Amino acid sequence: MATVETLSLNTATVRVKWDLRQIIEGCQRHAIRGISPWRDQVAAIGLDETARLIRAAGLTVTGLCRGGMFPAADAEGRRAALEDNRRAVDEAATLGAACLVLVVGGLPPGSKDIAGARAQVRDGIAATLDHARRQGVKLAIEPLHPMYAADRACVNTLGQALDLCDELGEGLGVAVDVYHVWWDPEIERQIARAGRRILAFHVCDWLVPTKDLLLDRGMMGDGVIDIPRLRAAVEAAGYLGMNEVEIFSAETWWKRDPDEVLRLCRKRVVTSV
Amino acid sequence: MATVETLSLNTATVRVKWDLRQIIEGCQRHAIRGISPWRDQVAAIGLDETARLIRAAGLTVTGLCRGGMFPAADAEGRRAALEDNRRAVDEAATLGAACLVLVVGGLPPGSKDIAGARAQVRDGIAATLDHARRQGVKLAIEPLHPMYAADRACVNTLGQALDLCDELGEGLGVAVDVYHVWWDPEIERQIARAGRRILAFHVCDWLVPTKDLLLDRGMMGDGVIDIPRLRAAVEAAGYLGMNEVEIFSAETWWKRDPDEVLRLCRKRVVTSV
Repeated sequence: MATVETLSLNTATVRVKWDLRQIIEGCQRHAIRGISPWRDQVAAIGLDETARLIRAAGLTVTGLCRGGMFPAADAEGRRAALEDNRRAVDEAATLGAACLVLVVGGLPPGSKDIAGARAQVRDGIAATLDHARRQGVKLAIEPLHPMYAADRACVNTLGQALDLCDELGEGLGVAVDVYHVWWDPEIERQIARAGRRILAFHVCDWLVPTKDLLLDRGMMGDGVIDIPRLRAAVEAAGYLGMNEVEIFSAETWWKRDPDEVLRLCRKRVVTSV
Repeated sequence: MATVETLSLNTATVRVKWDLRQIIEGCQRHAIRGISPWRDQVAAIGLDETARLIRAAGLTVTGLCRGGMFPAADAEGRRAALEDNRRAVDEAATLGAACLVLVVGGLPPGSKDIAGARAQVRDGIAATLDHARRQGVKLAIEPLHPMYAADRACVNTLGQALDLCDELGEGLGVAVDVYHVWWDPEIERQIARAGRRILAFHVCDWLVPTKDLLLDRGMMGDGVIDIPRLRAAVEAAGYLGMNEVEIFSAETWWKRDPDEVLRLCRKRVVTSV
């Protein structure tokens, strides 16, 4: 099992009741050493202030969520996405984030052309990568569960993400989230293939039944994912980073006292990751 | 686009308001030439009576739903599943079904061992295949969308299903349902690999947003799947069978007048398949 020192908190896990300043304080109070904030939360308290607070708290920034969302219905939309991704890269640099997580985007409105969307994603990442390299920011493609192919990310397997990494080269890696990849019969083989290109490792659990496609993720240990097996695989591949807890849970964890949630995360990272 | 003569009705599409006898009458009334019944509906009116009604109506049986559900927590459970699959094979033979569709099953209760479940699926299919060959019934593995990996089917890509076909040999093929496979970046390549092993082709659509993991499938044309592209691919691979409409839709189509649903299926198979 993992040690509590490897725990990083993706701020989505407690975002409903706390703003980012409270989350950073919560991490300190619970001796959580890593954080992965979302850009809207950063904007709410200011980028420089966020960077200052995180430095003062001594937190490792395991990622910034998120860049991506490249496909668009027209050239103007694609250009706007690229500009937003440049800003996201700059923010990741300011925060000293280990990576900028890319949720690449799905089908443009009205489109059924998933191959076309995938081509737009490739072009968008390629364009962003130039700027990211100059800034020293690594980009992490997060393959999302296939149930998000239409509306969130048309990169849906680790193998597909690694094909993009092979094509586009240096500075590009992957974020492996157990929720998105646990079902994949190729997962062990693709994790080994990824090697040091694994830039982040996200944990939560798949509940049975799952009541909502987006907001019903489980606490580690409450579902069916063999998380220790996947963690062992990413570590065997050379991953030396933290275990980032990211739980979207409108009806359960988002309703609880965030201090209770953080205490449980500390326990579960040891017993169930 | 497809012609209306290729339309087959999976009886789940109108199962809430009609029993199987009414569905067969509905197919006649709407000049629908194929049917794929579910075993519980067959049992409700009797196997021999079902066979008689279907013969009298001149319907092609494009499949029987369903065998599978092989993994179990203990040997007794696995043995019971094999016995049930033998019965399903016999029923498919009696009905003259083009195939017995296999929804292979997910994790046994309490288990997180998906590799173990997959091994149980392989063994279960192998054991069933002997009997199916003697009966002249083809078995069609239906890879299910990865969101069903835990509770319904741990075979989640066409490639994975074809690996099983390669291993287990003659008499085994696949059912390709656009809902389950449309997102797969490998899908065209795997359809070509499948070739004549495609025993059934199921159509419906993926809605955005999808409000329920199981019961919110869309009518062809109402979602984001490029169905004609997939149909062209299966036909290019050698598939000569019908286009089977299977829509689970608790809040929309199951609430409508089934005659209205069948009229719309006839239209949409021509405009959107």
